[in-house]
Amino acid sequence: MNIDSERLLGRLRHLGGLGRDPQGCLARLAASDADKAGRDALAAWFTASALEVAVDRVGNLFGIWRGAEGGGLAPVMVGSHIDTVIDAGIYDGCYGVLAGLEAVETLREAGFAPARPIVVAAFTNEEGVRYAPDMLGSLTYVGGVPVEAALATVGTDASVLGAELARIGYAGSHEPGFLQPCAYVELHIEQGPVLAREGLRLGVVENVQGISWQRVTIEGTANHAGTTPMSMRRDAGQAAARVLTFLRDRVAGSNAATVATVGCMSFEPNAINVIPARATFTVDLRDPDEQRLAGEEAALAGYLIELAAAEGVAVAVERLARFAPVRFDATVVALIEAAAAQRGLRAKRMTSGAGHDAQMMARICPAAMIFVPSEEGISHNPREHTAAADLVAGANVLLDVVRRLAGGKPA
Amino acid sequence: MNIDSERLLGRLRHLGGLGRDPQGCLARLAASDADKAGRDALAAWFTASALEVAVDRVGNLFGIWRGAEGGGLAPVMVGSHIDTVIDAGIYDGCYGVLAGLEAVETLREAGFAPARPIVVAAFTNEEGVRYAPDMLGSLTYVGGVPVEAALATVGTDASVLGAELARIGYAGSHEPGFLQPCAYVELHIEQGPVLAREGLRLGVVENVQGISWQRVTIEGTANHAGTTPMSMRRDAGQAAARVLTFLRDRVAGSNAATVATVGCMSFEPNAINVIPARATFTVDLRDPDEQRLAGEEAALAGYLIELAAAEGVAVAVERLARFAPVRFDATVVALIEAAAAQRGLRAKRMTSGAGHDAQMMARICPAAMIFVPSEEGISHNPREHTAAADLVAGANVLLDVVRRLAGGKPA
Repeated sequence: MNIDSERLLGRLRHLGGLGRDPQGCLARLAASDADKAGRDALAAWFTASALEVAVDRVGNLFGIWRGAEGGGLAPVMVGSHIDTVIDAGIYDGCYGVLAGLEAVETLREAGFAPARPIVVAAFTNEEGVRYAPDMLGSLTYVGGVPVEAALATVGTDASVLGAELARIGYAGSHEPGFLQPCAYVELHIEQGPVLAREGLRLGVVENVQGISWQRVTIEGTANHAGTTPMSMRRDAGQAAARVLTFLRDRVAGSNAATVATVGCMSFEPNAINVIPARATFTVDLRDPDEQRLAGEEAALAGYLIELAAAEGVAVAVERLARFAPVRFDATVVALIEAAAAQRGLRAKRMTSGAGHDAQMMARICPAAMIFVPSEEGISHNPREHTAAADLVAGANVLLDVVRRLAGGKPA
Repeated sequence: MNIDSERLLGRLRHLGGLGRDPQGCLARLAASDADKAGRDALAAWFTASALEVAVDRVGNLFGIWRGAEGGGLAPVMVGSHIDTVIDAGIYDGCYGVLAGLEAVETLREAGFAPARPIVVAAFTNEEGVRYAPDMLGSLTYVGGVPVEAALATVGTDASVLGAELARIGYAGSHEPGFLQPCAYVELHIEQGPVLAREGLRLGVVENVQGISWQRVTIEGTANHAGTTPMSMRRDAGQAAARVLTFLRDRVAGSNAATVATVGCMSFEPNAINVIPARATFTVDLRDPDEQRLAGEEAALAGYLIELAAAEGVAVAVERLARFAPVRFDATVVALIEAAAAQRGLRAKRMTSGAGHDAQMMARICPAAMIFVPSEEGISHNPREHTAAADLVAGANVLLDVVRRLAGGKPA
């Protein structure tokens, strides 16, 4: 049994065309008019495929195939999200939702009679561009944040999520968590370079890195760049540079899976002839192992204490986000691995470096993910690309896994 | 013979009160209405002291004491500037001009009959905040830039210097260079911490550092901070951090007078979870020795080539400014040193880390500078401060030096 490649690729292109500005830039921020356009298209496809459309209070959108026999059993859920970043590519999230829909249609068209309902989910605000935190829809769905708090979230544009969902017609009446699945499977592009570099077709995702986000502020003294001898300086910029070097030397020098990134940096007063009085930067630490992640945080904290003394600067650290690593369900992971092998796809077990709705769903049911290669590892970018053959192969593996999980028998 | 402390300090305070915004922030940018207010006050003081007021075509403002015997001889010139940075202190520049005026008045009141004319100068646009380059008035005065080019300079606010000078009534008719002095002496606050830290009262400035300003742009590849293994990164921010560390380790590790500063830094896209694709920063290198300055530039250039290869990044360097070091006149320097000793002031010979009009005047006549201590080395800041006793001591040394240079005899 194989999915309909043309239908899947056509829908990806169609959905990718919705929510573009006059310059062609794609941005379907959560609960925006552009998001509404994407949701309307998806809901129409659900309806056309005879799926029951359901929306919960935080706007999570579901297409439900109850199946003849599945009334009383917990459903199998597949899905992802269809909101995007600003100037996005067309695959991130959308691929998992549309491949889930494609799997359901393929099963139905093949006359498959599932033992369990199959649900296709599109979670609200996965990207977190408009509303913080990211993965808010799935987090709320699993009870990680109260519904009222989620709805009261104020966006970067001062909008309120609940009001925006009502405005675009996606403030549903179901309580988040109204469907408690027996398993959740999410198919996604890797958004990293590993599969492509290693010539693999599929990633069997067995865990998600823990994430630690911190903001470090170093306070030195602004002084004249020409008149202040090197020995009399308290240079916040130089101190910051040492932190970057410390982080990379430590992390790249270990054989662990840890990654460390300083993505944001600013100097004040940021003048060519003034010694920086303040340097502010972010530290993004990730590791699939909680103990190692905590160890890296502790090592950084220790280094900052030494640095403050050595450089005569003051250092303040603010915690921005912290997620513990997530381990996916061994049975679902093994099912994915077996399906890939049966399809003859070169695959490997791997860690997700990015956050995904699956890590939230893992709190309430067995869950796992499937990755397909991202060319050059590019994502969150119009150049985001996965070869059509890989998209099709990934969707076929999802199809096989869903069929096994839904436990029906072939007609 | 001693200057009138109260008159000098009172004028400093009065001038420092002109050109403040409603919040009290001082900003007399060159050829602005605020600059006009400062110039009008200075010209009025010149007139009240029976000095002849003269303005050249680039707005340099002079108070000339011809003296009874000095008609045919080249004058002694003292001065500095009265334009300021934004949110300035009251001493930078103004102190040298007002102390020069104070010296002239003191000599006249003492019945001193100078052999040479004495001229007090206030040069246009020394700070360079509104029009580039800085020291434009003195640079033009010594023929370093054609007058027409200076007048055509477009400011950061799109204004044109020549039009602005005409508008505020300070587009004079004298050709820059119309007075060719026999010597130029500039009294100035140190704007650095050295004198204060070492408990000295006076700096005998024998040279000015050469300045090299460059902008370095490092291009790497933006990638997802979670999904890109450390070994697959081309992180422009990490590469930039290595340059900062290289510069400081090299310069602070030598015993030379070199200073190196990275004052401006920016990362792109500057997102917490994206590996920086681009890092842009400035490098300010200064050294009183031209060969050593050129050597530091070459060392940096060599390091950037190595870095590009080691980090897989592209590095581009743009030269923003370059001034060779200036050595002041040994005779004038010795005169200052002797005067300080006679006044019983603890003094030392030193290098100016900042640029000053004196370095331009040194192109056309023997020149040197006198520094007084800046508390905590703070300058270009409302907290800029020099103790009254130090201001008076410096002005008295200037008085002594001018008297010697003007070569008259006591009445």
